[in-house]
Amino acid sequence: MTGKFITLEGPEGSGKTTVSKELVKILNEAGYKVLLTREPGGVDIAEQIRNVILDKKNTKMDARTEALLYAAARRQHLVEKVLPALKEGYIVLCDRFVDSSLAYQGVARNLGIDEVYNMNLFAINDVMPDKTLFFDIDYKKGLERIKVNQRETNRLDLEKSDFHKNVYEGYLTICKQYSDRIVKINADQKVEDVVQDALKEIKKIL
Amino acid sequence: MTGKFITLEGPEGSGKTTVSKELVKILNEAGYKVLLTREPGGVDIAEQIRNVILDKKNTKMDARTEALLYAAARRQHLVEKVLPALKEGYIVLCDRFVDSSLAYQGVARNLGIDEVYNMNLFAINDVMPDKTLFFDIDYKKGLERIKVNQRETNRLDLEKSDFHKNVYEGYLTICKQYSDRIVKINADQKVEDVVQDALKEIKKIL
Repeated sequence: MTGKFITLEGPEGSGKTTVSKELVKILNEAGYKVLLTREPGGVDIAEQIRNVILDKKNTKMDARTEALLYAAARRQHLVEKVLPALKEGYIVLCDRFVDSSLAYQGVARNLGIDEVYNMNLFAINDVMPDKTLFFDIDYKKGLERIKVNQRETNRLDLEKSDFHKNVYEGYLTICKQYSDRIVKINADQKVEDVVQDALKEIKKIL
Repeated sequence: MTGKFITLEGPEGSGKTTVSKELVKILNEAGYKVLLTREPGGVDIAEQIRNVILDKKNTKMDARTEALLYAAARRQHLVEKVLPALKEGYIVLCDRFVDSSLAYQGVARNLGIDEVYNMNLFAINDVMPDKTLFFDIDYKKGLERIKVNQRETNRLDLEKSDFHKNVYEGYLTICKQYSDRIVKINADQKVEDVVQDALKEIKKIL
């Protein structure tokens, strides 16, 4: 693959989405072909899986079922959208990837980072990001931001505050475990400063 | 778990469904509590996943996505339906389980038996059948039976004959690999004889 695969990770309300749109603008202006995409979803079959995952009616969903569905959506999105773009030389910015499963299902759902990682190897089949940006913000501040934005709630938003605390702490563990791939970005500053910090890291691998 | 977990496997048109209904009648009459169920599906979330798997529109589905979706449906069905019934002492007759994934995705889709099995370990989390009955019938005869029954076709029915040949040969390999758990039943005889052969095997573990 000739492009660059960059994933964006972080707790709810970390500002990944806002920042990534700015990154696309700047990288486009600098002459790069950029594909911005997100998980779960991004292609039709993965969107169907996303609907099952996020449906508020599905309160009985087992943690392992959830992890397998995320991995299924990940696989389809990877094959149909990410890999073809990388082949054409795109910088692919992907909002969430395997580290989200490690933090959410591995840590917060208590399935274990290594167990969730091993299952995900079946889905990603050796495709790992060239770089992962972790948007670091305290989970409480992140949750406050979501409240202000008032987007429609989904099944994961129904989780208690402890869940989001565990997700955040999970991310910190993963950052240590994969320190050669994941870099922390301070997300608790003005958007333009977060964008510049992220850009600096991206430029290192271009 | 105090009940018995018995899975029924075989190519399309092997007669599993017909035979299993007869088995339920006979076992009920003998005083056993029996739950007859099938994969993929059996509980609401798993049925939603089943719809994604079998939808004829989803022709772009990657083989690994398919395997992960079957595993997700398997997990949810196991947790919500199979395990509670086993706990209450039921004989659970389950039409398809992990061996279907080994034959269909592992062999016919060429992902490898061991790779699909390892991924499925995440889903089943150490719950394996006490006994598996493989309904052995040549795949061509099986496909002819389906034509006669004329049920509505799904995405898997669109596969060419070679696919079903590979599924069948996959099953034969799996029967050898797990010969302590799987027993072959000659499915190319009158229904009442297949039922009696299956019953003989089930009684060995009751």
